[in-house]
Amino acid sequence: MRLSKLLVPTLKEDPSDAEVVSHKLMLRAGMIRKLTAGVYSYLALGYRSLRKIEQIVREEMDASGAQEVFLPTVQPAELWMESGRWDLYGKELLRFKDRHGRDCCLGPTHEEVITDLVRRDVRSYRELPLNLYQIQTKFRDEIRPRFGLMRGREFMMKDGYSFHAHEADAEETYRAMWEAYSKIFTRCGLRFRAVEADSGPIGGSFSHEFMVLADTGEDTIVSCDTCDYAANMEKAEIRAPDPTSISAWDGPPRRAKTPGMSTIEQVSRFLKVEPWDLIKTLILRTEKGPVAVLIRGDHELNEIKVRNFLKVDELELADQHIIEEITGGPLGFSGPIGLEKVTLLADHAIRALPRAVVGGNENDTHILDVVPDRDFRVHHYLDLRLAGDGDRCPRCDGKLALSKGIEVGHIFKLGVKYSEAMNARFLDAEGAERPMIMGCYGIGVSRMIAAAIEQSHDKEGIIFPPAVAPFTTIVTPVGAKDPGIDRTAEDVYQELWNQGIDTLLDDRDERPGVKFKDADLIGIPFRITVGKKALAQGKVELRSRKTGETTLAPVRDVPHAVRELIRTWGQG
Amino acid sequence: MRLSKLLVPTLKEDPSDAEVVSHKLMLRAGMIRKLTAGVYSYLALGYRSLRKIEQIVREEMDASGAQEVFLPTVQPAELWMESGRWDLYGKELLRFKDRHGRDCCLGPTHEEVITDLVRRDVRSYRELPLNLYQIQTKFRDEIRPRFGLMRGREFMMKDGYSFHAHEADAEETYRAMWEAYSKIFTRCGLRFRAVEADSGPIGGSFSHEFMVLADTGEDTIVSCDTCDYAANMEKAEIRAPDPTSISAWDGPPRRAKTPGMSTIEQVSRFLKVEPWDLIKTLILRTEKGPVAVLIRGDHELNEIKVRNFLKVDELELADQHIIEEITGGPLGFSGPIGLEKVTLLADHAIRALPRAVVGGNENDTHILDVVPDRDFRVHHYLDLRLAGDGDRCPRCDGKLALSKGIEVGHIFKLGVKYSEAMNARFLDAEGAERPMIMGCYGIGVSRMIAAAIEQSHDKEGIIFPPAVAPFTTIVTPVGAKDPGIDRTAEDVYQELWNQGIDTLLDDRDERPGVKFKDADLIGIPFRITVGKKALAQGKVELRSRKTGETTLAPVRDVPHAVRELIRTWGQG
Repeated sequence: MRLSKLLVPTLKEDPSDAEVVSHKLMLRAGMIRKLTAGVYSYLALGYRSLRKIEQIVREEMDASGAQEVFLPTVQPAELWMESGRWDLYGKELLRFKDRHGRDCCLGPTHEEVITDLVRRDVRSYRELPLNLYQIQTKFRDEIRPRFGLMRGREFMMKDGYSFHAHEADAEETYRAMWEAYSKIFTRCGLRFRAVEADSGPIGGSFSHEFMVLADTGEDTIVSCDTCDYAANMEKAEIRAPDPTSISAWDGPPRRAKTPGMSTIEQVSRFLKVEPWDLIKTLILRTEKGPVAVLIRGDHELNEIKVRNFLKVDELELADQHIIEEITGGPLGFSGPIGLEKVTLLADHAIRALPRAVVGGNENDTHILDVVPDRDFRVHHYLDLRLAGDGDRCPRCDGKLALSKGIEVGHIFKLGVKYSEAMNARFLDAEGAERPMIMGCYGIGVSRMIAAAIEQSHDKEGIIFPPAVAPFTTIVTPVGAKDPGIDRTAEDVYQELWNQGIDTLLDDRDERPGVKFKDADLIGIPFRITVGKKALAQGKVELRSRKTGETTLAPVRDVPHAVRELIRTWGQG
Repeated sequence: MRLSKLLVPTLKEDPSDAEVVSHKLMLRAGMIRKLTAGVYSYLALGYRSLRKIEQIVREEMDASGAQEVFLPTVQPAELWMESGRWDLYGKELLRFKDRHGRDCCLGPTHEEVITDLVRRDVRSYRELPLNLYQIQTKFRDEIRPRFGLMRGREFMMKDGYSFHAHEADAEETYRAMWEAYSKIFTRCGLRFRAVEADSGPIGGSFSHEFMVLADTGEDTIVSCDTCDYAANMEKAEIRAPDPTSISAWDGPPRRAKTPGMSTIEQVSRFLKVEPWDLIKTLILRTEKGPVAVLIRGDHELNEIKVRNFLKVDELELADQHIIEEITGGPLGFSGPIGLEKVTLLADHAIRALPRAVVGGNENDTHILDVVPDRDFRVHHYLDLRLAGDGDRCPRCDGKLALSKGIEVGHIFKLGVKYSEAMNARFLDAEGAERPMIMGCYGIGVSRMIAAAIEQSHDKEGIIFPPAVAPFTTIVTPVGAKDPGIDRTAEDVYQELWNQGIDTLLDDRDERPGVKFKDADLIGIPFRITVGKKALAQGKVELRSRKTGETTLAPVRDVPHAVRELIRTWGQG
């Protein structure tokens, strides 16, 4: 296509309302424009990238045996009431009434609709398994949409749902989706990692996230430096410490006044101990009643681990009133000694403390020289904290390391959560009625563009992998009013299209510097410059956006040379 | 793909809630399922047809020089307030508030969004023209959605918008869109007609509708039996009658009592005159005040023509109160004699009446032997009625004929309606600021599937044109547990895919009769039956769904034979 005919409003300056680099660069490259908070229009370049990704997703999903369907955006409330999510889903579910006053919502996800579809038409194990997917606009009314396509309200998603008669079959499809996702992200030219994830409020039994690696990512990836273990922060397990060789303190605990000192930092400084000598005693409220959790002073609680162990949905810090009732003391001075009224959970690291400091359950008081299992009784020792750099891998002797990523895919083994709630049943080979076993599989298609940019850019602009670039090559004639240059540029452009290489021709009446700057900004992987000097030898200049390397190629060899550049792109 | 793996829940019986044949057959063929009123899920077969149409639309739009963009579904109210349509658009515009209480709507069309996009980034005539299109889900909250994909609430549409510096340029793009649309519908294998249309409440200066011809169509097409004039019912012009050779009645008018007779039928029967001897006097209310319109007794008023002549938005029958005030008589007995308080419009046919019957502006009274222009004065004679079979063509000496169609495309020359209202201006070559001239162009992509079926089906099911069929061919092995048959079917199926012909393999464990019935119902254009008898000679059976013709072809010739069948399909 000809750049002079396309609406590509590039900007010289960073827009003031964009915080992250992908958002800035997509605006500057004229790929997207904001309509309203978290809602974007895709211009020609942006939509070309989106469709390229869509097509890769579609091809790999089809190859995996999944079938493409297309479900409605507007959904009736009844189905969400059946699944129970009408009440559970918060304000991100955009609800409204239609002209007849019927409650509806904009689909943030389609478990209800697909389960309804399948339960109506599928009766027998003979009709299973089914793996249905769609690529479709979703809406989630995020309270604070930001970062452009990274966290929008309206976005493009591939969501897929599978239905099975057997657990083994569900797991086979889970693996097939894992493989398909790996192929998709690889074909898109992204560096990524699949990590274990908590299945979270969507329910189900296990799940993995696919993370694009990028220093600017919002998500933290925990991975082993030795084996292939990787998980997200919520899920990452930590191996319990080996039984300690240091013998526990044998003197008695002693009380100390710590006036107004309630934080770890205050107490450790005041008592001249290290933060890892302290035990935080957290009194938490759940729908099953309060619980106390012990974490070492320098560690962070992983609420998901507590939630999963206790099998509770609600978990929050208890208020002053509950704390006083349970501990007898005020907020900020809780400790495990004498705590009889609640279950006491402790992170593994607590057991290894030879001589700890705890709250005294009394105003302005801490207790020193406390020995766990001697001075207080823990009901359950378990892994309850967030992983940190250097923690021990749960699978091998390696150490864990933290890095940053952007979640672009998520696969869940759902189990029977929706099929039980919505009565999606089938007759098995023995004639017994059973709920279908389900899986669900999502890819943030529009977010992938942003992730690709976060992973790969420089100060000049975007560096797109060829597979997701709006165009693979750009032909840039330089040298005003030279019909030989223009004709050659036109010939090269046409020949590239003839050979199936999508190409942009910068036929604008602009200076070479402006053309080069825009090509770099948009991130077209390969630029073909047609200029006077090289053309005198029958050659044009080929430049790689990624490496900056420039070579001269005879005009007729350009398509071949470009194909070679595409083939070796990942190795560059 | 293998039918055993796809969700294709065919139904033997017509669903009770489907009225029209395309709706019934799409449900029976397992192409779609209803989610809620006017909102459908596309299953694998339905979505394949949809995507094939999308791709044809995309290719022809791109070839025409338009560029694809993708605009949001959720739109902010502000833009609709700017254009004035927040108030004008009725309840079909689904409005709601987001979590922050901001007014939004689901896009039924995108003039506002695209005009906003272009005005922000386009400043100069040098950046024009622009022709932007998208293929996207739309929502219109129809009060009575029905007929499946024919009149749904959520549907797939191609909408395009062009922006121009000059009228001549806008008209050139209008013609280019006309050509592109003609190619699209031709490639889809549809018989269609482009007809003149009124540009209606969307505004603008002229427009055409593209109608798929089908006896079951909701729309009426008026076309000349001699020249190529064609229009929809709202727009169809009628040539005024030639000056009549019959001399007008020279006796005086006379009053007659017509007790309780207020309809044309009652009056003509009672007075023993023909309906075409009567004049209907309609008192209409507009925002500019009331008006009287005269139509011959056997004719129907075309409100659009009145509206366009008077340049009014509101037009409805006046109530009893207004009628009495203007005519002095009750509803049902209005007549033109002595009507001094309002403008009197009359259809051309009134002028040719030599001796008419009119209402007496008095209860139970009519006046006979009335001569127009002698006994009452008409302010304007003009074309005010709906065309009928046999009316005179406005362009030639031919006669008009009515037929039925389904609107699948609509092109508008919008002019400056939106650019004026929303201040979308550019600097022309002389440096003067002017509003952009706009056009807009729609195709009902999902409705095209239904239209194709309405146009082409029989009692066995759908007869899809190859270009829009979910699959071009179906390979049907018959003869249980014959490995030779299954292997040949598999080979033929693979070879067809290898040669780029999309093929369904009916690998289900079903009787031949069931397989044949389903293939016919789904409307796959060509069936390849692999059976024992033909296979003994190394042949398979090819059958055309459209003609029912069956031929035998050697196994290796199947792809070639299918290509020949596709090539000659339209001629069959």
